[in-house]
Amino acid sequence: MVLTKSSKDLYTEYKDRMQKIADVKYAAAVLQWDQETYLPVKGAAFRGRQLASLSEIAHEWLTAGSLGDLLTELNARSDLSGDQQRNVALSLEDYTKQKKFSPAFVRLLSETTSRSFHAWIKARSANSFTLFKEDLDNVVQLKKQEAEMAGYEQHPYNALVDQFEKGCTVTLLDKVFSQVRPPLQDLLDRIRAQQQVDDSFLHQFYPKQQQWDFGMELIRQMGFDFEAGRQDLSEHPFTTSFNNKDVRITTRIDEMDFSHMTWSCIHETGHALYEQGLPEEYYGLPLGEYASLSIHESQSRLWENNVGRSRAWWQHWYPILQAAFPSQLKEVSPEQFYKGINKTGASLIRTEADEVSYHFHVMIRYELEKSLIEGSLSVHDIPAYWNQQYASYLGVTVPDDKRGCLQDVHWSHGSFGYFPTYSLGSFYGAQLFLAAKNQDNTIEKSIEKGETASLLAWLRQHIHRHGRCYTSEELCQQATGQTLDIQHFLHYLLDKYNNIYNF
Amino acid sequence: MVLTKSSKDLYTEYKDRMQKIADVKYAAAVLQWDQETYLPVKGAAFRGRQLASLSEIAHEWLTAGSLGDLLTELNARSDLSGDQQRNVALSLEDYTKQKKFSPAFVRLLSETTSRSFHAWIKARSANSFTLFKEDLDNVVQLKKQEAEMAGYEQHPYNALVDQFEKGCTVTLLDKVFSQVRPPLQDLLDRIRAQQQVDDSFLHQFYPKQQQWDFGMELIRQMGFDFEAGRQDLSEHPFTTSFNNKDVRITTRIDEMDFSHMTWSCIHETGHALYEQGLPEEYYGLPLGEYASLSIHESQSRLWENNVGRSRAWWQHWYPILQAAFPSQLKEVSPEQFYKGINKTGASLIRTEADEVSYHFHVMIRYELEKSLIEGSLSVHDIPAYWNQQYASYLGVTVPDDKRGCLQDVHWSHGSFGYFPTYSLGSFYGAQLFLAAKNQDNTIEKSIEKGETASLLAWLRQHIHRHGRCYTSEELCQQATGQTLDIQHFLHYLLDKYNNIYNF
Repeated sequence: MVLTKSSKDLYTEYKDRMQKIADVKYAAAVLQWDQETYLPVKGAAFRGRQLASLSEIAHEWLTAGSLGDLLTELNARSDLSGDQQRNVALSLEDYTKQKKFSPAFVRLLSETTSRSFHAWIKARSANSFTLFKEDLDNVVQLKKQEAEMAGYEQHPYNALVDQFEKGCTVTLLDKVFSQVRPPLQDLLDRIRAQQQVDDSFLHQFYPKQQQWDFGMELIRQMGFDFEAGRQDLSEHPFTTSFNNKDVRITTRIDEMDFSHMTWSCIHETGHALYEQGLPEEYYGLPLGEYASLSIHESQSRLWENNVGRSRAWWQHWYPILQAAFPSQLKEVSPEQFYKGINKTGASLIRTEADEVSYHFHVMIRYELEKSLIEGSLSVHDIPAYWNQQYASYLGVTVPDDKRGCLQDVHWSHGSFGYFPTYSLGSFYGAQLFLAAKNQDNTIEKSIEKGETASLLAWLRQHIHRHGRCYTSEELCQQATGQTLDIQHFLHYLLDKYNNIYNF
Repeated sequence: MVLTKSSKDLYTEYKDRMQKIADVKYAAAVLQWDQETYLPVKGAAFRGRQLASLSEIAHEWLTAGSLGDLLTELNARSDLSGDQQRNVALSLEDYTKQKKFSPAFVRLLSETTSRSFHAWIKARSANSFTLFKEDLDNVVQLKKQEAEMAGYEQHPYNALVDQFEKGCTVTLLDKVFSQVRPPLQDLLDRIRAQQQVDDSFLHQFYPKQQQWDFGMELIRQMGFDFEAGRQDLSEHPFTTSFNNKDVRITTRIDEMDFSHMTWSCIHETGHALYEQGLPEEYYGLPLGEYASLSIHESQSRLWENNVGRSRAWWQHWYPILQAAFPSQLKEVSPEQFYKGINKTGASLIRTEADEVSYHFHVMIRYELEKSLIEGSLSVHDIPAYWNQQYASYLGVTVPDDKRGCLQDVHWSHGSFGYFPTYSLGSFYGAQLFLAAKNQDNTIEKSIEKGETASLLAWLRQHIHRHGRCYTSEELCQQATGQTLDIQHFLHYLLDKYNNIYNF
């Protein structure tokens, strides 16, 4: 049947099918967004099954033999455009990967992670890992099965990390982290031996509504299109997207800590600008999707740190902030503010960590996940392992599970292999920001004036518009002239902190 | 295949299939809720296609031949429980009805009503029926075809009204409305000849947040479970439900009119209490669904009017309201308040109409729909017909289409046969409330103390827990000892207004 049809007709059929799958997938994303923002507590169980059914449909359609036939035939046609060929090749790759998981397994995983998410919520609020343990163990067992079904070389963790970052392996991550760890450890040690900077001004009372208003102003100025997205509150800030015209971010406000709201807004807006910049005409097709998690994170971390914790950025924003919170900030000079918001040291919470210690948080989770998946660590032993690693890497004592192994949502969602992309994102982010400034020397000056349109234009041009056309490394090569070179990140960081701590 | 399986296995298969269909249907309901509350404006087009894809899946599954075979076989089995038999029989009925419409017709109707909805929006904002005429005519033509496909006795309108109110016919509606019209007309005429009551205190400035807070207090006290539902704001108040543990209502706040928020909260909570009271174990099955639109409306109207506009209710609530809005209400006595909130007269807008004139709005639409569907009135003549009827029934001059035949959304959605259920709901509501008070003489006294738990318990017992097991008339018979008797509603109304207007 397929063989007699024109490539044009076949491609249209492919596009229609993919876009219907996207409709179901994004409907599920709406239900998930609602789950994290507005779902009444007793609605959790039914929401779980509704999400499971949608996942099942999407998975069934994505793995239909007839789709496989269509993709295989289209992939062999030579009269498609370059973009069309790329879409088809990537879809075929996805198809082949998905085909390895049975519908029953997909449904089980969805139901299990939905339950474990709610167990995590409860456990976290009760500050007790015990309440999460059993559900988490169920998730881990399924993720091990998943790795076996997907297949891998050398290490089962490779199968999981590959889902978030194509081509990334334990070998590669071990290499990168081993390069980055000694200089960061050295920097952290030197900072510890030094007089600490003062950030107490961040820990005064900042009323909720005023924080919200300031955050909204930041987001708007960064170029977030509020007609194509919105911000809400949630326990754990995140970005989700149902198409490039409906991109949603969330934040969390702590009235005794101004930093939560501020840098989560900037971070999530970094993600959101990427989503709003994806090509609309490729809705539901690979070229309409983000390149990889590390590239996604490069966008958020670039805005959060390279921009949002820079002197240039606060040259414009600090007077505005001071005017909004005069009683809290009138005695704090711009330089004190800049140093305070970059205060570095050992800390307990990843999402609140500074740019240096952050990567130790990631390394600890990475090591832990590898051990869980290879079976050298059991779920039962997570708290002890966690606390020991925090003592050894960061020299801190973990007082309880809430500030320890219960702090992140990822495992409850079944996202093993996700954390490493956070660090990769920082590394790519630093390299991209440097390239952007080198290629357009107006960027830094503009940021000082509160204008980020030229930076956004550069990112749109070099990253956003390409969707998933290229891998992380290909994008990096095209945008910066070379693949990931960890030295850019290290230079940026050492320069910055040598200055802040007067080394 | 089906023949060799046990009834138990077949029933499980049936239940699983229906619950998966429910998952998709309720996922669509979440997307619709979001569309009316939080959707960013540019997201509308993609949301439209996401909703269309979900509807298509649900319709396809609901009309699958294999489901028909399963239902037919199960329906012939004699070893099912009574509830199981009822579920299967109702599902088979639904299947048979749905099956009469081809997928092509369903798609055409969906596309046509989607276009006519947008035409209605435009026409309404331009205040010109002409802009809606052509699209509405397309809808009417399709609804006529639909009536033919569905089949009917005597009048094609019967086929349409049956979709909202099983068993309801033109004969029955004509009889009910002919009974209710003369006494209501007489009452309205007498009220017109009388000194009008004063409700100007409702039209002062009532700040948004304080209105919201008062509404939330009302809702909570009525027994709405906020752990199994929530309230948000929307342009037009509505209730939606994704299962009995996640029921959502919305309200609208007009700072210059206290009545919108208050009675929309009470009305929607009436709907919501019904949904929260449906049996959870029948999720996705007929016995887990509401009985009919008129019974749904009986719940909202009972709470809104029989309870929420009664002296007993405000005996408890008025002091609380006065304390919340002292500057607005300190000079208004409880009796003035009671009379003001029951002010009656001819009006142009159905949703703002009082308990007496409301039914003329419904009768006008009912007569008009009947004439359109039987072909004795053409779409072109709607405005003239409408304006003449408003002059004749209510004695008011319709100044423009926006406040005339363009005011309601229903026709643009293709909902012909829906309006009569609004009046039936009021009639059933009055009869049910009377029966409740007769059977439990603590109810009225409790309401005076702000306690409605005993009323809710009665409704749960006699209406909510039965789901769709019985028709409107069967439920009414069981709960009140007789089928619908319009005299109960008329006595209630005449008593109330004779007192308010001192006849």
